[in-house]
Amino acid sequence: MSDSIKYLLDESAIPKQWYNIQADLPTPLSPVLHPGTGQPIGPDDLAPLFPMELIAQEVSQERYIDIPEPVREVYRQWRCTPLYRARRLEKALDTPARIYYKYEGVSPSGSHKPNTAVPQAFYNKQAGVKRLTTETGAGQWGSSLAYAGHVFGIEVKVFMVKVSFQQKPYRKAMMQTYGATCVASPSEETQAGRAILEKNPDSTGSLGIAISEAVEQAVMADDTKYALGSVLNHVLMHQTVLGEESILQMEMADDYPDVIVGCTGGGSNFAGIAFPYLGRNLRDGQSTRIVAVEPAACPSLTRGRFAYDFGDTAKMTPLVKMHTLGSQFVPSGFHAGGLRYHGMGPLVSHVVDLGYVEPRAYNQVTCFEAGIEFARAEGIIPAPEATHAVKGAIDEAMRCKAEGKSEAILFNLCGHGHFDMQAYIDFFDGKIADQTYDESELAMALAGLPSVAA
Amino acid sequence: MSDSIKYLLDESAIPKQWYNIQADLPTPLSPVLHPGTGQPIGPDDLAPLFPMELIAQEVSQERYIDIPEPVREVYRQWRCTPLYRARRLEKALDTPARIYYKYEGVSPSGSHKPNTAVPQAFYNKQAGVKRLTTETGAGQWGSSLAYAGHVFGIEVKVFMVKVSFQQKPYRKAMMQTYGATCVASPSEETQAGRAILEKNPDSTGSLGIAISEAVEQAVMADDTKYALGSVLNHVLMHQTVLGEESILQMEMADDYPDVIVGCTGGGSNFAGIAFPYLGRNLRDGQSTRIVAVEPAACPSLTRGRFAYDFGDTAKMTPLVKMHTLGSQFVPSGFHAGGLRYHGMGPLVSHVVDLGYVEPRAYNQVTCFEAGIEFARAEGIIPAPEATHAVKGAIDEAMRCKAEGKSEAILFNLCGHGHFDMQAYIDFFDGKIADQTYDESELAMALAGLPSVAA
Repeated sequence: MSDSIKYLLDESAIPKQWYNIQADLPTPLSPVLHPGTGQPIGPDDLAPLFPMELIAQEVSQERYIDIPEPVREVYRQWRCTPLYRARRLEKALDTPARIYYKYEGVSPSGSHKPNTAVPQAFYNKQAGVKRLTTETGAGQWGSSLAYAGHVFGIEVKVFMVKVSFQQKPYRKAMMQTYGATCVASPSEETQAGRAILEKNPDSTGSLGIAISEAVEQAVMADDTKYALGSVLNHVLMHQTVLGEESILQMEMADDYPDVIVGCTGGGSNFAGIAFPYLGRNLRDGQSTRIVAVEPAACPSLTRGRFAYDFGDTAKMTPLVKMHTLGSQFVPSGFHAGGLRYHGMGPLVSHVVDLGYVEPRAYNQVTCFEAGIEFARAEGIIPAPEATHAVKGAIDEAMRCKAEGKSEAILFNLCGHGHFDMQAYIDFFDGKIADQTYDESELAMALAGLPSVAA
Repeated sequence: MSDSIKYLLDESAIPKQWYNIQADLPTPLSPVLHPGTGQPIGPDDLAPLFPMELIAQEVSQERYIDIPEPVREVYRQWRCTPLYRARRLEKALDTPARIYYKYEGVSPSGSHKPNTAVPQAFYNKQAGVKRLTTETGAGQWGSSLAYAGHVFGIEVKVFMVKVSFQQKPYRKAMMQTYGATCVASPSEETQAGRAILEKNPDSTGSLGIAISEAVEQAVMADDTKYALGSVLNHVLMHQTVLGEESILQMEMADDYPDVIVGCTGGGSNFAGIAFPYLGRNLRDGQSTRIVAVEPAACPSLTRGRFAYDFGDTAKMTPLVKMHTLGSQFVPSGFHAGGLRYHGMGPLVSHVVDLGYVEPRAYNQVTCFEAGIEFARAEGIIPAPEATHAVKGAIDEAMRCKAEGKSEAILFNLCGHGHFDMQAYIDFFDGKIADQTYDESELAMALAGLPSVAA
């Protein structure tokens, strides 16, 4: 077995195709339904929001979809990302396990998000789109689309949840640096925003409101479309570029993962690392265990219902079948903003429902502790979201120690924490406690799920 | 010629030796003088501050010095760093020049500083040192030593200039994450600090005061020594690991630099990229031009005097011959904190004096503009210090365009700007102006230089 710490691949090794897990599922996804009619929607229903190429990818059953050369050309700026063997962490844990992590923090915006921002900008450019709108919470996605838009000459307008806009000025500055416009949501620029401000001038916004504003501006203008950073099938598929790379890198290490760990908000970084291996489980008889870690304060996979629900709070989106806490569920303000979503990507929900993935929920204090242990060993400070994957990997390594087993554990370190240091400060100041939710509020949110035959 | 964007080297290619330019200089450095006697100091004079191995490196005339295996072992966490061909930037500039940059932002702390923090921690550990003290301005150096100290099991105490401590809480959080203690300077913990606070309880501190505090604690305790992040010969030598790597990577690109550009504060990142090539100029008849870019508001190389001076404001250090604006010169608060030093590393000063290097000064507004142009093209947001090198490289590329020459330009992108986004915000808000200094104050500071035969 190799004794390296890093497994680097030349840019010529960037995968030429994304992997589409829909081709290998024994049962297909449930159809997306029109919120008014309850009938399955068609491509034309989505055309005001997305270019046809992405709509086609959303429903494609092809196992592999070619990555356009102009997209691979931009990927070359930071891909292939490194795969690390966490030798110092293994030593600190005194575990017989071999811990590997794929590190996506080397991208322009510091996370996996550009993997889909770039193709989304490309396909929109190809379709003649002049402007993209989107929403962002913590700012990872907004800054990724800002960069991708600049590369392809598309204007980008980001509606950033006002409370984040105020608390995270650095993310806004990053978007500006890449040439995008970032406005606080709710804004005066849309009907949706003005309606909220009229009722509540002090509104600090929400992801649901920001989505409404971004969608409204996309629908109202012919030359403008909308982009989403997670949840959707095509977004999850674009992320498989990282998992496909990791397969080559595990080969360089002369090893193969017994366990895969990823953190899950909408599901995109998790799908990126897990789906290529899950495909091998389904096709090639591999038996890699796959663990999805979510925050205990927003536990859609472990406490939600697998049911049709709206993607947004304002109930404007189509209905999708997914693990959900109910679109009216409002998660508390824990620090992993990227995991603060009431639902889960339909593809991730589907494979969890099929029993292919083990969901697991962690509280945030233990995740920060794991993140700090990781940083001291490996040098990289993980984003709060990524600390959930770190904690999952450490727990698996400790299990190996208890069982005396030398397994290979692979997790996705989806981003660095350079823009999240306030969370670490709060942790050191003892201001971070485990968050929870009111059981009766969850019950109410679940009771409010739309009544659609599943 | 290669058509790649990135040139990656496996960790096995990490250089086994640092390059010591003292071996190739036609005239030796002027000796370091005792501030009291005016006589050259010996190793014993430095022993309270540094372990003997580093003191030996400070005066060594050996061309190559072996990098200890435990240091290379830690370097493997992030080295070799990538060398990029800036193809998008070239296109944006429409220049026939080939622009390359070595990117040190992939290190744990996000800059070149760990290249010397790691060996300094190692040699101190080897000498039985239990604790290291240091000062930090912007925090780059403090966080690098914090990581290196943790790796080798040495306590690290960082005195951070109080105004930075308050303005840059994220850097302090990074040091804490790595397990170091970071206190605001002036502090109540030292005689030097208490004396300042007694006179001025509201003192916001200075690098000079922080040095005094760190040195005092090192001198007072047998198990404690002091570490410095730039200026000294051994520190500059440790940085040649990055330049030596770049030579291999330029070979991969089948190219060789016609021009090298680096930014200069104390001189360490500049020396890291430039000295290995300067050595080839001196030994092998190469004729690479070497450009040192400094801030116009603190122009030690272009406006200072090459003379003996103190390293600190409080006049506690030995006297070294260097380009200096006078130890009483107080630079204005421009944003490239790492370039805000009244002097310059003696080795850099010496080779500038010998005419081997072209010094050049830029104002900060034009540097931020260059930094933003770079970020939009290449995706990486440069630290304010690094924007000076970016601007230098862009100017060389535009010269090539004007002259119709296709030259190879190599610069060191010494760090990312993730912890400096406030500077970008200030730029976008129109709050950044070019800084200058009062000519009569400079004249006075230069008049106050100690009278020592040069």
